[in-house]
Amino acid sequence: MLAAVQSYVDAFAREDADAIASLYAADATVEDPVGSPPLHGLDAIRGFYGHSVSLKAKLTLEGPVRTAGNVAAFAFSVRIEHGSAPMRIDVIDTFHFNDQGKIVAMRAYWGSDNVGPA
Amino acid sequence: MLAAVQSYVDAFAREDADAIASLYAADATVEDPVGSPPLHGLDAIRGFYGHSVSLKAKLTLEGPVRTAGNVAAFAFSVRIEHGSAPMRIDVIDTFHFNDQGKIVAMRAYWGSDNVGPA
Repeated sequence: MLAAVQSYVDAFAREDADAIASLYAADATVEDPVGSPPLHGLDAIRGFYGHSVSLKAKLTLEGPVRTAGNVAAFAFSVRIEHGSAPMRIDVIDTFHFNDQGKIVAMRAYWGSDNVGPA
Repeated sequence: MLAAVQSYVDAFAREDADAIASLYAADATVEDPVGSPPLHGLDAIRGFYGHSVSLKAKLTLEGPVRTAGNVAAFAFSVRIEHGSAPMRIDVIDTFHFNDQGKIVAMRAYWGSDNVGPA
């Protein structure tokens, strides 16, 4: 799980949406932010991350990854190039893993209070 | 939700298990750590926190509280007096709130990899 989280961060750094999507199981869900309608399946997930890397989203881990059973939770900040003014979003993600080490459910906890200038 | 999280941290500092329990709805659940059988109801929850404060658990927030819809997620460290050697546990909690501002479900993400000397 720690390796998958690091691969996730590294793939954003390389702007490699295919590498991000490859961490997911075929029938995975992505709820980002929590409370929004979840995406379902690799096509939707690949499209979501294609948009993220087009915004040059870069992730910085904030503190250690927490692992509980088959779930990893981690705090991080995202820097996004948004027009002329870069933005920062503070996020906590949870990844639920299957027995093959693929992510089956991702949830991203953040809201407007967590968005500001970078 | 931010006030509830701060009240939670402050109540640990005061070793006040009743104040912690008062943040919860009557039928709330506590899953700590994630993957363990959830506690259900205020009596069980009050007992759980009574044990925590007896260990002199103290919480330090690590970074901003993330808020998404009716859910708050936050990273923190816990310092526990455990015999002669204090321990540190790195944790991420999620609090799901009802419309009355009470916590209805708490989940704590941490595992043995997140436990070490303080």
